[in-house]
Amino acid sequence: MNKQERNAMFALAKGWILEAGESIRKRLYDPLTIDTKSDANDLVTSMDKDTEYYFINNIKHVYPNHLIMSEEGYGDDVRTFDGTVWIIDPIDGTMNFVHQQRNFAISIGVYHNGVGEIGLIYDVIGDNLYSAKKGEGAFKNEFGLSRLSHDKSIYESILGMNHFWLCNNRFVHEKKMQELVRTVRGVRTYGSAAIEFAFVAEGVIDGYMAMRLSPWDIAAGIIIVDEAGGLTTTAFGDPIELLRGTSVLTCNPSIHKPIIHDYTRQGRK
Amino acid sequence: MNKQERNAMFALAKGWILEAGESIRKRLYDPLTIDTKSDANDLVTSMDKDTEYYFINNIKHVYPNHLIMSEEGYGDDVRTFDGTVWIIDPIDGTMNFVHQQRNFAISIGVYHNGVGEIGLIYDVIGDNLYSAKKGEGAFKNEFGLSRLSHDKSIYESILGMNHFWLCNNRFVHEKKMQELVRTVRGVRTYGSAAIEFAFVAEGVIDGYMAMRLSPWDIAAGIIIVDEAGGLTTTAFGDPIELLRGTSVLTCNPSIHKPIIHDYTRQGRK
Repeated sequence: MNKQERNAMFALAKGWILEAGESIRKRLYDPLTIDTKSDANDLVTSMDKDTEYYFINNIKHVYPNHLIMSEEGYGDDVRTFDGTVWIIDPIDGTMNFVHQQRNFAISIGVYHNGVGEIGLIYDVIGDNLYSAKKGEGAFKNEFGLSRLSHDKSIYESILGMNHFWLCNNRFVHEKKMQELVRTVRGVRTYGSAAIEFAFVAEGVIDGYMAMRLSPWDIAAGIIIVDEAGGLTTTAFGDPIELLRGTSVLTCNPSIHKPIIHDYTRQGRK
Repeated sequence: MNKQERNAMFALAKGWILEAGESIRKRLYDPLTIDTKSDANDLVTSMDKDTEYYFINNIKHVYPNHLIMSEEGYGDDVRTFDGTVWIIDPIDGTMNFVHQQRNFAISIGVYHNGVGEIGLIYDVIGDNLYSAKKGEGAFKNEFGLSRLSHDKSIYESILGMNHFWLCNNRFVHEKKMQELVRTVRGVRTYGSAAIEFAFVAEGVIDGYMAMRLSPWDIAAGIIIVDEAGGLTTTAFGDPIELLRGTSVLTCNPSIHKPIIHDYTRQGRK
């Protein structure tokens, strides 16, 4: 993808994400239709659907040949990363959106022939836009984010992690995760993978780990963290395959090896 | 304590907390002296100490007979709640302050003969002041907080809780806490007890539980949550004794009984 083309695409995507966010803020206290998806706690609202629809309409109008992979299923059935693919989560952190009316984000990643070119994560209520273009650094609004320091110790790190992984689960032995909790300085849970990726890029937390995420949860975050000097793999240290559900560890590179070697790989089921 | 006296005290305390917050914001990126207290993760900074000193000076100047109980130990050795006692945490969430430069709060509770009269929690970076006077409702900045609804189901609740209580600990069997995590809709960890109390009052989370907190972590929060229609006890349902360390459950009243009866009491060590 040439730079001019990418800059044009970035400008459009940025305009759309800000406009979608503004529309959500205006309708924040309107009555919502809330459904559940895979289980009672997997929520989807009319706002998720409307927002996704807005993006798909706009993208398809300008780029009829681009493919779109999106959470609520109005996009394409994407099976390869040939050409340009937009990966969209209209509201990441829907539970926060429904219960808290804050701490949710719109996430857009644009990949060209499998390479992450553009990442945008918009914290709608905080009105903070995290963004990156491949090779051009990561930004919070108009400010460039500092590159992550490479001398972070695991003992002085703050990790983002859900409480589930400390309970019996299908992916990892909970005892090893409990040891990890006891090793790091602190653990936080914010309830939006996209925001936790943005926080890793910003250095607000030093890593974020999850055992089961979808492409739209992480597509933008991977690019932004990468441009901030961070590293994203599966929770067990393997390369991410973005076409399907995956575990994730995104972090300051200096704590990647200790987490993988001493905790997740030893605890893998 | 008569109303006029209390209103004057509230106005002073509010002025001091806003001024202290402004001073912290101005010095946010100044170099810090960071020490550790009881363990490597129990941090205290020069900013904690300076801020506490600021409050003590101001309070003692106006109210030489009032007692002050405060985190960093510059206050009095308070052994009873006779008379008026100020309970102060200059920076609640010091780890967040050091690592994130956000998500920390100043907490001030004023008790008269053991009765909570004034509570103030100031989220310094969000610039949100949560406050309450006994019997006059809870506020976020100038807006009154709605009373918490009394029909919240535990299955649709979001709890604030640290990850430690899902690991082996001295206070509660981790298996029961893990069951609780699986029961509620979601769990969050923000890293500041004062902010989590404020979030309970605001309905951002439905409950917050911790096994070991100090008086200054909770003194303001108890009053604010109470004025929002919430309920605070120990994690096992007993009345809080504010003169010493205690466990805490502060929550929407409708989820108090299920948490106590079905989880914490059964798991108590």
